[in-house]
Amino acid sequence: MADDQHDRPAAEASPSPAAGGLTRRRALLGGGILGVAAATGVGGYAAGKASADDHTAPAGIVPFHGPHQAGIATPAQDRLVFGAFDLQIETAAELRELLREWTRAAELMTAGRPTGTVAGHPEVPPEDTGEAEGLPAAQLTITFGFGPSLFELDGRDRLGLRAKRPRALRPLGPLPGDELDPARSGGDLCVQACANDPQVAFHAIRNLARIARGSAVLRWTQLGFGRTSSTSRSQATPRNLMGFKDGTNNIRAEDTDKMRRFVWVGREEPQAWFRGGSYLVARRIRMFIESWDRDRLSDQEAVIGRDKVSGAPLTGEREFDEVDLDIKGSDGLTVIPPDAHIRLAAPKINDGQSILRRGYSFTDGIDARTGQLDAGLFFLAYQQDPHRQFVAIQRKLGVGDALNEYIKHVGSGLFAIPPGIRRGGYVGQGLFER
Amino acid sequence: MADDQHDRPAAEASPSPAAGGLTRRRALLGGGILGVAAATGVGGYAAGKASADDHTAPAGIVPFHGPHQAGIATPAQDRLVFGAFDLQIETAAELRELLREWTRAAELMTAGRPTGTVAGHPEVPPEDTGEAEGLPAAQLTITFGFGPSLFELDGRDRLGLRAKRPRALRPLGPLPGDELDPARSGGDLCVQACANDPQVAFHAIRNLARIARGSAVLRWTQLGFGRTSSTSRSQATPRNLMGFKDGTNNIRAEDTDKMRRFVWVGREEPQAWFRGGSYLVARRIRMFIESWDRDRLSDQEAVIGRDKVSGAPLTGEREFDEVDLDIKGSDGLTVIPPDAHIRLAAPKINDGQSILRRGYSFTDGIDARTGQLDAGLFFLAYQQDPHRQFVAIQRKLGVGDALNEYIKHVGSGLFAIPPGIRRGGYVGQGLFER
Repeated sequence: MADDQHDRPAAEASPSPAAGGLTRRRALLGGGILGVAAATGVGGYAAGKASADDHTAPAGIVPFHGPHQAGIATPAQDRLVFGAFDLQIETAAELRELLREWTRAAELMTAGRPTGTVAGHPEVPPEDTGEAEGLPAAQLTITFGFGPSLFELDGRDRLGLRAKRPRALRPLGPLPGDELDPARSGGDLCVQACANDPQVAFHAIRNLARIARGSAVLRWTQLGFGRTSSTSRSQATPRNLMGFKDGTNNIRAEDTDKMRRFVWVGREEPQAWFRGGSYLVARRIRMFIESWDRDRLSDQEAVIGRDKVSGAPLTGEREFDEVDLDIKGSDGLTVIPPDAHIRLAAPKINDGQSILRRGYSFTDGIDARTGQLDAGLFFLAYQQDPHRQFVAIQRKLGVGDALNEYIKHVGSGLFAIPPGIRRGGYVGQGLFER
Repeated sequence: MADDQHDRPAAEASPSPAAGGLTRRRALLGGGILGVAAATGVGGYAAGKASADDHTAPAGIVPFHGPHQAGIATPAQDRLVFGAFDLQIETAAELRELLREWTRAAELMTAGRPTGTVAGHPEVPPEDTGEAEGLPAAQLTITFGFGPSLFELDGRDRLGLRAKRPRALRPLGPLPGDELDPARSGGDLCVQACANDPQVAFHAIRNLARIARGSAVLRWTQLGFGRTSSTSRSQATPRNLMGFKDGTNNIRAEDTDKMRRFVWVGREEPQAWFRGGSYLVARRIRMFIESWDRDRLSDQEAVIGRDKVSGAPLTGEREFDEVDLDIKGSDGLTVIPPDAHIRLAAPKINDGQSILRRGYSFTDGIDARTGQLDAGLFFLAYQQDPHRQFVAIQRKLGVGDALNEYIKHVGSGLFAIPPGIRRGGYVGQGLFER
């Protein structure tokens, strides 16, 4: 069993029926529910041996290396596990060591491989926790971020990195309507693990937490069971828990001009090391779905500004018809009401600003205070400058959005997402270089 | 939009790319991540018009009607949302009405259809919450159960149904090692929603909770992100969060003799109405995965009694090799230790008893007391008699299982699962008949 340190044996790399002893061909042909996973699994296995930044990587593997971190422009995967960490170390050298170790582990896991031995020497604990053994890479991406507190905590230059702080990594500050739970907010570091198999995403966060032992500890996590955004033209628009299509006018990765103007940090950033990065705003948005469900259809559509079934703006007939904020009805009022969500979020009334949304629906049991479902949207948005973009838009939404009757922001995080990682390098490497 | 009450329009039944206007053929051909869902979606749509108990139902739909409820012998789907409800009503007639409404809604949802209007009259709330609109049935099954408190609460025959109580529906009583949280235990009614899309499962629980408003309220819920059991020979054995294959020797639906002896309630049941039913034991089992991960491989394998990678018993070479409890090693001790989990759970030392496991891995954020992941196994097991089976086995495990160092039972529910529903009938109908 010593030789299974990095390569999964063939019998493990694809689901096998109870009778055992099937061939890869059988797995590829599929059969029942597992057919697709099996097919992807074979790709994942093969690619474990290919170069991870090979743009011809087999299906199931998202290249880890590149100019930007994966998991931003990557077509949004179906499942999310997100973790925010608090540091327990006191020097930049220790942070660098953690980031090196995390990078190595992420390279392996995103290629569908374990972080180390699943079953090595009998007398030592396995290096990898094992629950993803036999599963394909499932488009896993692991995206790392740095919170403001990494650079300055209570006014202290805690790690000697303050001079390297990205320009716009200043706390978001209080926003209208916020009811933030500190236990679900903040963090010195974050890791966004997205995959099409939740067990693969969970395995990633768990193993990174394990590797961080003694250096960083999980502060909060969030499971997202279903994506609520499309980030590629190849994806349909999913519905959120209000039953509406969400993110119809989201930035798509194919809009390279918008990605450059609104998502990637460019030359406006004085910290050269951070160019090619982005900023992530994470907001846990509780939806009061029981109240929403009691609202009449016409009001739901007026609150959002779209048709519930088709997703068309109230001024159009099809989902992607232009949102016309000026058209008036026979009553002389604008068809899209003054407080409609799509009006207040529209680039047109936000100085042209836009953000790349990449959120997920969540459900975390029952709210003990009310007996209602603790469910909603875990909003993730990538942008070039969170103050010019998210904060400015949210100041409008937080005050005027008709949707505020049905939602509440209860958790918040801001993270600087370093640029992509080159082969042999590690995430945030520029922090430690002159 | 009035005509979309029960049939989803074609444009909604399949994901459509951003450009819009695609045909069903395009959806069938798939494209990217959504290809499979699209293909299944078309099946789901077509079957919405077919008879729901048609055994030639298209892929994606599990027949709702039959001699037993679906979701027990059904090959275990990948995702779970489970809800336990407390009743707010005081008469059997009101309960019957709720069960009728739930049954109608379940018939629709398991066929991939909404529970009613998604967008009906503008001046009334939609009947269905809409977030599953456009999604396929995704093998959704909805399985209903009755807790002991439905028949007797604090000694009271609360609904006049005590005389109809299934024979073995007596509280499990305290079990060794239990640390049960009342807020995650019990319930007058339960609903198990399993599907291959978590949004479809969530939609089911949410809409049933909504239909129940004024009659029953959610007491607790549990999301299960990945199945840890196979219930069919067509399925590979998944791994649990300890990294081990779980349920290798589970009962499979194809073992009709075992299903009859261990799962389905038969003539031993004096309540004729309940024959063909089963009993569900639900246990929220927290795993202390951080401690587990620090244990050496040989000890992990001794605790379980199996090889970590292959899943073979320590006395064999392949996963499905027989578990030999008697073989001794050169040290004169049995190879499978006296306190190994598979020994104490083995039918051989449990009077031949066996149960059908159908559990799911969960993760619910961070345990605030310890900073560790609140994760583990949401154990679901179906059986003919929970006292003869689960309780007897758990009494052994709770005292002697080496695994107890790493797990804790923190939630518990027992439910009588009525027999299957005939077309035009409703779940638990026999309760209300002479």
